[in-house]
Amino acid sequence: MNERIQALRHKMAGLDLQGMIISNPVNVKYLTGIDAEGILLLTRKENIYITDARYTEYVASTLTPFDEIVVDDQKNISRDDYENYFLFCENVGFEEDYVTYALYKEYMHKYKINNFVEATKLVEALRMLKDDEEIKSVKTACEITDRCFKMLLEYIKPGMTEKQIARKIHNYYMDNAEGEAFKAIVASGENSSKPHAIPTDRKIQNKDIITIDMGCKFKGYCSDMTRTIFIGEPKKEQLYIYNLVLENQEKVLNEIKEGQNIKHLAKMIENNFSDKGYTLVHSLGHGVGLEIHEKPFINMKNDNLLKENMIITDEPGIYVTGNFGVRIEDTVLVTKQGSISLTESTKECIII
Amino acid sequence: MNERIQALRHKMAGLDLQGMIISNPVNVKYLTGIDAEGILLLTRKENIYITDARYTEYVASTLTPFDEIVVDDQKNISRDDYENYFLFCENVGFEEDYVTYALYKEYMHKYKINNFVEATKLVEALRMLKDDEEIKSVKTACEITDRCFKMLLEYIKPGMTEKQIARKIHNYYMDNAEGEAFKAIVASGENSSKPHAIPTDRKIQNKDIITIDMGCKFKGYCSDMTRTIFIGEPKKEQLYIYNLVLENQEKVLNEIKEGQNIKHLAKMIENNFSDKGYTLVHSLGHGVGLEIHEKPFINMKNDNLLKENMIITDEPGIYVTGNFGVRIEDTVLVTKQGSISLTESTKECIII
Repeated sequence: MNERIQALRHKMAGLDLQGMIISNPVNVKYLTGIDAEGILLLTRKENIYITDARYTEYVASTLTPFDEIVVDDQKNISRDDYENYFLFCENVGFEEDYVTYALYKEYMHKYKINNFVEATKLVEALRMLKDDEEIKSVKTACEITDRCFKMLLEYIKPGMTEKQIARKIHNYYMDNAEGEAFKAIVASGENSSKPHAIPTDRKIQNKDIITIDMGCKFKGYCSDMTRTIFIGEPKKEQLYIYNLVLENQEKVLNEIKEGQNIKHLAKMIENNFSDKGYTLVHSLGHGVGLEIHEKPFINMKNDNLLKENMIITDEPGIYVTGNFGVRIEDTVLVTKQGSISLTESTKECIII
Repeated sequence: MNERIQALRHKMAGLDLQGMIISNPVNVKYLTGIDAEGILLLTRKENIYITDARYTEYVASTLTPFDEIVVDDQKNISRDDYENYFLFCENVGFEEDYVTYALYKEYMHKYKINNFVEATKLVEALRMLKDDEEIKSVKTACEITDRCFKMLLEYIKPGMTEKQIARKIHNYYMDNAEGEAFKAIVASGENSSKPHAIPTDRKIQNKDIITIDMGCKFKGYCSDMTRTIFIGEPKKEQLYIYNLVLENQEKVLNEIKEGQNIKHLAKMIENNFSDKGYTLVHSLGHGVGLEIHEKPFINMKNDNLLKENMIITDEPGIYVTGNFGVRIEDTVLVTKQGSISLTESTKECIII
């Protein structure tokens, strides 16, 4: 049986779960490598992937006997079959963060489950800790992002629009990676004061500040990086805030390591910002992996500790409403001794 | 109050719901025009949009007093406030098809709701019937798609890759619309035998068949069209299947009108295909609107009747495993007397 399913079954045993339904396609992909529409059942004795005729050809070509996964076409599954899958299971886990209320009721009815147990955290706990192969993929995605940023510094000129720059990023990632991990943010001038700005037809002008938030996918894994750059000499206030954000972004980098309390990191930046009269309006960061936003979320509500081989972002930002904003972000690997930034583009103040 | 919220409140009254929580961002956008992260509460007396600091500036600029929507920043909402929202509501509706089991439990706890009622269908029933403004938007998205297809017929040449063609579509929609409604499918040669193929580096060759499935967004509304074309003379079997699919696609167009049973349409094509030894492996179609796939779903399980001003796709396909496939699809408006195809690109056999 493949290692990840084996690890999950081990965790299931610890919670007295005899079965589990995996419905979230990202979790199915993590456990099986299959990227299609279908669900994975872990029953007492078997691993069963249920899909339909559109995908059976592809799925058969993806799996190896080593995976020990039986593929069933849902067309051939009778009502009795459904009821038999978990017949001798007292407790069956499901993903309460993914399964809708309607689907929950459908599963209860279809599989006649005795005790349906919330178990999202089992797969998420596995996914939070990246193995060597996963780290390598994120690292490569980060390297491609560094090269894309370098290309942009040559490319960006006053007169071009935010959309034009966003498209350049899109095309670069289509050529050099598996495309974008998310729609790039290119926010210039006053637009940079919105943390989640969508690229517009606004033309880049002299004296502009530009926030660029971008990332790509490589072998299914994401990268995430933000840099804020200037067209011409920055104003005094802009430079002050740039340095304040940068100083705090690096403080976090220095504090990240196995055993560090996540809440503590967010609280530290929140305090530093509010001491100077500013607020941390969004989270300090998030996990990165098969999804661009995944656990652990780095904010003041998360009282857990960082662990070796987590990959997270460190992205403080300050936004002066209607005026401008600065955000600086790296994708970072947590190690026993500290942190390794996987995105390596310069964070010195860049003036074009 | 805006008309759509008024219509929803009318439907709520019919189901004895005194309150409702709208969490699905597409439904929030439909009801309020707001495209952000937040939820809409319809309480006995008020319409309340709950969001956070990232979006308050944008939301304030979107709403008018006419909307009668109060905006609350979640940071300022106390535990008591949450419990008071639905204090005198016996029954409160929620979207069981969108809300996860975990969120359902959180709502129950936070709002202290007496009776939480599954009510997805209320907003969906409204969204299924398009008003003039919505029809105009889908029609424009379809016109842009027709122009994109015309451009492609000039552009496609042997030697270019599927990915290259997919990017051309992406860029066309970025320039002429609000981008793609979904990632375009460009499936050539044997790849066309997969209904959900992802564009590859395969080069277009002489004697290829190419299936192109694409659509864009205009004012938030989607278009969806598929055409299958040939590079050089098609083989006999290919032409036979092309004509069989086309004939059936047009049969459906002729049968679509208010009052038509949806199941009947799907059954008709399934029968016609199986008479000739083929199978309809995917749905015959789906609704199109703010989402590329929305209700009504056109398949053999749907026993409902078509209604005037629904917009649906008509997309039969035949796939010869490992060999080739043909799919032909239009986006279609349902009228009292019949149907109007909003995508108008030629369906005659095109040979490049």
